[in-house]
Amino acid sequence: MRQLVLPRSYEGAPVLELKGKESHYLTKVLRLKKGQQILGRDTEGHMILLTLTEITANGCVLSCRQVDSTMQVQTTDTLPSYQGPYPNLVLLQCLCKGKKEEQIFRQATEIGAATLALVSSRYCVTDLSDKKEKAVQARFERLDAQIKEALQQSGSPIPTHLVPEVLELKDVPTWWADRGLAMFFHQSTRSEKQETLTSLLKGHPLQVPVCVLIGPEGGFSDEECSFLEQSGFHPVLLKTNILRSETAGLYALSAIQVLLTEA
Amino acid sequence: MRQLVLPRSYEGAPVLELKGKESHYLTKVLRLKKGQQILGRDTEGHMILLTLTEITANGCVLSCRQVDSTMQVQTTDTLPSYQGPYPNLVLLQCLCKGKKEEQIFRQATEIGAATLALVSSRYCVTDLSDKKEKAVQARFERLDAQIKEALQQSGSPIPTHLVPEVLELKDVPTWWADRGLAMFFHQSTRSEKQETLTSLLKGHPLQVPVCVLIGPEGGFSDEECSFLEQSGFHPVLLKTNILRSETAGLYALSAIQVLLTEA
Repeated sequence: MRQLVLPRSYEGAPVLELKGKESHYLTKVLRLKKGQQILGRDTEGHMILLTLTEITANGCVLSCRQVDSTMQVQTTDTLPSYQGPYPNLVLLQCLCKGKKEEQIFRQATEIGAATLALVSSRYCVTDLSDKKEKAVQARFERLDAQIKEALQQSGSPIPTHLVPEVLELKDVPTWWADRGLAMFFHQSTRSEKQETLTSLLKGHPLQVPVCVLIGPEGGFSDEECSFLEQSGFHPVLLKTNILRSETAGLYALSAIQVLLTEA
Repeated sequence: MRQLVLPRSYEGAPVLELKGKESHYLTKVLRLKKGQQILGRDTEGHMILLTLTEITANGCVLSCRQVDSTMQVQTTDTLPSYQGPYPNLVLLQCLCKGKKEEQIFRQATEIGAATLALVSSRYCVTDLSDKKEKAVQARFERLDAQIKEALQQSGSPIPTHLVPEVLELKDVPTWWADRGLAMFFHQSTRSEKQETLTSLLKGHPLQVPVCVLIGPEGGFSDEECSFLEQSGFHPVLLKTNILRSETAGLYALSAIQVLLTEA
């Protein structure tokens, strides 16, 4: 582990008490002793140096101090040598099978995507609308767990945020609210309208969000494509083969990250 | 399915007889009738129009005619609108768990990598050297099956080739024989020596091979890094987090494909 993701409730206090799984991990798995240190990351992305001060019956107490990312601590693996800046990447993924969604969101978190959301569109094979609320909630909890694990393993300084609801495709433009550059991918005959990643991203400022909308296995319908175009989403033709959903998202995010950070 | 991958033995004859699984797939799953057509791809990447002429007791007979990629046939899904040119991408992947290797090679095939090989290095958790020949052979057969399925699904015009043996890292430079640009990825403190993908690929001709060497979960040792550098492999620092093996390969190949095809 490269960093411990701190609970959402943590707001910068100098002392933090952990219970349950997290305390177990620190004191039993990593076998942290009193006085030993580990790096943490709060939900804002700040790096926090944690020192174990007390092991209690059902948890542990840590003292907290904000530090910069050059800090090295013995009980945590070395952080990546690249520490930013990162582009602000937003992945909107149309629903697919649960296991695939987990893989996609884990990998998107690994590379430092800032925001992840699930979208429901016409040709989605998966339909969550008739599922019990509990099942949908469990799905989001599994995605959250994958994101947290990826943050801890990858050492990402980006506190990846999962939108806690499934967006309907028709509501996506309102949700997005023109925060930056938005695009979707479509292997179609309308290639004359389509742009390349390089041309779209030319001169794009690193801090302005880039939204990548990935369709379901069945693609977008013609009506959906027209709606997205009218809503300011750019149709992009990737110069590659027809990709599965779980490949398309990572393909696009990787290329965009390289184009923006190496520009 | 977008195309049927033809048996390796096919060398352009006007008639092809299929038996077993492949014949079953055409006549029972796709329910192809006499006179109906399907697109095939031979191991050289040529597109072949196949017409079913006879269904026999244990197979079927097809007539074959080489066509160009704009051909549309009802019983095959539409091919991708992008039909090349593709860069010549070579992925050398250090051994990891079998399931992960299958995922990596399936995804690399999907995006059109030309050559895939497994490499054994010092920190590989997986060691095939003490495995029985039969187990290693089964591993390669599973990888071959994944590659074939990915070719059929993605419509890739690149007949992805799997090197049928595990390369030792020390033999990689000899195997590679300076065919083009070779690089490896390393999150290290030696960042002053490291280059970016964009700078390395600037002006790189599309047809000259690009070799991407991905380390095992434990990374490369210092000795291995020095050896690779001395052998002409460029160390690249990706401006991202520490990626798992199954993310790193796809990340690099995607970015390289976009940089070269959109240049």
